[in-house]
Amino acid sequence: MARFKLILEYDGAAYHGWQIQPALLTIQGLLQEALGRLAGGPVLVTGAGRTDAGVHALGQVASFEAPIALSPRVLQRALNALLPRDIVVLQATEAAPDFDARFSARSKTYRYTLLRREYPSAWHAGRVLFVPYPLDDAAMVAATEAIVGCHDFSAFRASTCAAKSPVRTVHDARWRLEGDCWHFEITANAFLQHMVRILVGTLLDVGRGRRSAESLAELLAARDRRRAGKTAPPHGLCLVEVQY
Amino acid sequence: MARFKLILEYDGAAYHGWQIQPALLTIQGLLQEALGRLAGGPVLVTGAGRTDAGVHALGQVASFEAPIALSPRVLQRALNALLPRDIVVLQATEAAPDFDARFSARSKTYRYTLLRREYPSAWHAGRVLFVPYPLDDAAMVAATEAIVGCHDFSAFRASTCAAKSPVRTVHDARWRLEGDCWHFEITANAFLQHMVRILVGTLLDVGRGRRSAESLAELLAARDRRRAGKTAPPHGLCLVEVQY
Repeated sequence: MARFKLILEYDGAAYHGWQIQPALLTIQGLLQEALGRLAGGPVLVTGAGRTDAGVHALGQVASFEAPIALSPRVLQRALNALLPRDIVVLQATEAAPDFDARFSARSKTYRYTLLRREYPSAWHAGRVLFVPYPLDDAAMVAATEAIVGCHDFSAFRASTCAAKSPVRTVHDARWRLEGDCWHFEITANAFLQHMVRILVGTLLDVGRGRRSAESLAELLAARDRRRAGKTAPPHGLCLVEVQY
Repeated sequence: MARFKLILEYDGAAYHGWQIQPALLTIQGLLQEALGRLAGGPVLVTGAGRTDAGVHALGQVASFEAPIALSPRVLQRALNALLPRDIVVLQATEAAPDFDARFSARSKTYRYTLLRREYPSAWHAGRVLFVPYPLDDAAMVAATEAIVGCHDFSAFRASTCAAKSPVRTVHDARWRLEGDCWHFEITANAFLQHMVRILVGTLLDVGRGRRSAESLAELLAARDRRRAGKTAPPHGLCLVEVQY
């Protein structure tokens, strides 16, 4: 028996998210299936972040216990041979016996990308939210400041969110421009279900002048999901990195 | 009658290149078809660069004469509605009567991207050449210097190249690192057929120690295609910008 840590990159377009679901294609499902074939028996995989359907990852982390001895190198090679081309194991290492991709994580960084121009992109298609309307950048940046810190994020969680506590600490949240792309990069100790997407949906409201930059603090205080913005679509979101 | 200039972005994966060919899907072909529908008669489009099958563009330029009056704005909107999603008109403007996307171009910039890591990418798939073997960066950078300037590029042209003269002026050629991606960016007054791809194939030989950095100058002097490297695959190449 040995414990392993994987770093994974995937294009989420074809998948019903990370979490295994009967009769649906999921990253966890495919990974467990491949590991099951290698190990000759069931393997349970834990992911650092349960990315939604259509959400991408550049640095998802997974951990599992292998019932057979495997070199990390052989494991990585075999997994990359068995997995579809839109899921890649970037790194495989042996992990400490108590390592858990989810519970050992100190923090995670997500990125949500807006494509700000008049027409959609042939190049970035499927990885950005196309935003052809003007946005008030300054208001969005100001509103973003309100979410940094330790807050009750009840206003920014899906009604189906199963987390016990709605309190999360956002270490950093900022906007970064790259060509026509405007990246929202957020690092927190953990995230509630749909948290980044609801934040982006709400910040887009601010950008369009439909709510004020100051309203973010009020939304946090009111803790009412119905007052926040729409959940932004999944394809603009990417799990960039998990910190341990 | 009015003359127009278009700036186009496309993912070349699905196409047999820019140039129209009977019974094959090409960018020029689709563009002429769409313009023909808008104009109610045949429209001949000139492209700045005849990108090969599978080659991408972030800033291809096209020019044509429209037999009907159209506002550039309406033209852009109509073309983007008619064209497939992997071809986007980024900009449409009226052009001077003597403007020709190809012959008015002062220079063009192409980018060839190598993905330097052990496993292919789910994210960059189809836009990079996957290079899992080590490369001698310094040798490749040194070899690249030899191609800057005005040279006879006969060693770096396809046997099917129809250009009258093999002499081209490379204004700039450099390598730029971005994460795992190593971009070869080259600007020249014009390019011979397959020139960038043969240069990259030859520079990869240098990187792998199969030929010396000094051999580039000898190759240029010898003007023999058979002595240069293989033509690198098209999907790593992108026409980035055309300068007028």
